[in-house]
Amino acid sequence: MTPVLGVAELQQILRESFPSAEVPLVESVDGDSVVVYLPVNERHGRPGGTLSGPSMMTLADLAAWLITMAHVGPVVLAVTTSLHIDFLRKPSLDDLVARGRLLKLGKRLSVVDVELFSRGSEALVAKAQVTYSLPN
Amino acid sequence: MTPVLGVAELQQILRESFPSAEVPLVESVDGDSVVVYLPVNERHGRPGGTLSGPSMMTLADLAAWLITMAHVGPVVLAVTTSLHIDFLRKPSLDDLVARGRLLKLGKRLSVVDVELFSRGSEALVAKAQVTYSLPN
Amino acid sequence: MTPVLGVAELQQILRESFPSAEVPLVESVDGDSVVVYLPVNERHGRPGGTLSGPSMMTLADLAAWLITMAHVGPVVLAVTTSLHIDFLRKPSLDDLVARGRLLKLGKRLSVVDVELFSRGSEALVAKAQVTYSLPN
Amino acid sequence: MTPVLGVAELQQILRESFPSAEVPLVESVDGDSVVVYLPVNERHGRPGGTLSGPSMMTLADLAAWLITMAHVGPVVLAVTTSLHIDFLRKPSLDDLVARGRLLKLGKRLSVVDVELFSRGSEALVAKAQVTYSLPN
Repeated sequence: MTPVLGVAELQQILRESFPSAEVPLVESVDGDSVVVYLPVNERHGRPGGTLSGPSMMTLADLAAWLITMAHVGPVVLAVTTSLHIDFLRKPSLDDLVARGRLLKLGKRLSVVDVELFSRGSEALVAKAQVTYSLPN
Repeated sequence: MTPVLGVAELQQILRESFPSAEVPLVESVDGDSVVVYLPVNERHGRPGGTLSGPSMMTLADLAAWLITMAHVGPVVLAVTTSLHIDFLRKPSLDDLVARGRLLKLGKRLSVVDVELFSRGSEALVAKAQVTYSLPN
Repeated sequence: MTPVLGVAELQQILRESFPSAEVPLVESVDGDSVVVYLPVNERHGRPGGTLSGPSMMTLADLAAWLITMAHVGPVVLAVTTSLHIDFLRKPSLDDLVARGRLLKLGKRLSVVDVELFSRGSEALVAKAQVTYSLPN
Repeated sequence: MTPVLGVAELQQILRESFPSAEVPLVESVDGDSVVVYLPVNERHGRPGGTLSGPSMMTLADLAAWLITMAHVGPVVLAVTTSLHIDFLRKPSLDDLVARGRLLKLGKRLSVVDVELFSRGSEALVAKAQVTYSLPN
């Protein structure tokens, strides 16, 4: 599958959709996969000095949204139907990287597999499966 | 099961654990259930004018953490092992309320059912099942 | 919501859909809830002398299918989109009971909460959330 | 990670653990991955002429159990803690193949990613994440 939107277009959609928040950065879009990362700073911390679970869920959700839009165009109103995440290891306080891979793109739903890891490490910190519902 | 921590103690743990963030409010702790809510303002919005999915996941995760601690004491280092959430309806921009119910409290894991709804409405906006791992 | 199919009709659909298998029994249909149970015998056992996980998943999936059909009519071609289950306690070798509750009934999807327990006990043995996709 | 059990040993555990049932076949064990398949026949069918969801969940659960045992030894009493599965496409009535990949092996829990496909096709029919609890 060839994406219809690339890094620059996805980055712009992110900036326009989340004007006030700190915006994750799109690193690459290639076939059915997107890589996006969250530059990490102290604000994301949690008790115990690790990155928060919600930061990881938020990035996983975003990766699924981005790879869906990369293939169907700028459907900013697509909504998450379900998200499942297993937390595997404590992430370091390095940048959090998400690799989203489109498992299915139907007329109604997209399903995305998301791997999360800390920049510079191969070990997964979390693994998610996310379903988006596409507007008619 | 009788909780060992009440509303005031849980609220204080929240305040100390998240000093810089806006802190959800603990409304009640009763047997195996906790009610916690997020006062909603414009910052939580998403394209389409609804509350963001990450806001809902974050509150679900927090409700599970709180009802776990209410029964085992202030184990602030308990970590989420897995979270599953189904998004059901668009929430209104009213306060987001989460009701967490302890399904299992073992030596290693707690499992919590979380219902999310908008203040003033009976219809669920999301439903989650969250597992926490308890430190030894 | 008032169901459009009752116990007898759902039981007949089960019998016709699974002619060769041993068929679970529909106990009640009431508003948004169905109760169905699996008469347990030795064949369902697993190492350790407990009921198998697949038996529980199968019954949860079935409960979700039945309460969906109870409200939309005999859509036997509805298919499971996703299933999440947390296993909580070892079931006894008594009948396995599932209570399915419709959380959402949309035009495309139904979402069902399923509680599983052993006959004669209040303690949940498993808890599931199941999504069905409705044919056009 | 090098497995401590191979194809023959896992196949024997399967045969001994499920003496009366039809037993899936272990195809390969390699590093953190196992491949196991279910020879498909008419009994697995469902309304609409496709393979049943429970057959897929059962095989996913089994793949997770096998790759866990391949690395920790014959812990036949390990129990499934949670299972999440997204159903993606209707499988054909060919053999159902599961590839389980160990994402985490801790002292208490193992987490396994499972891809399911029909023999002879690259397209995934389902995708699961399964957690097993290891006995002390």
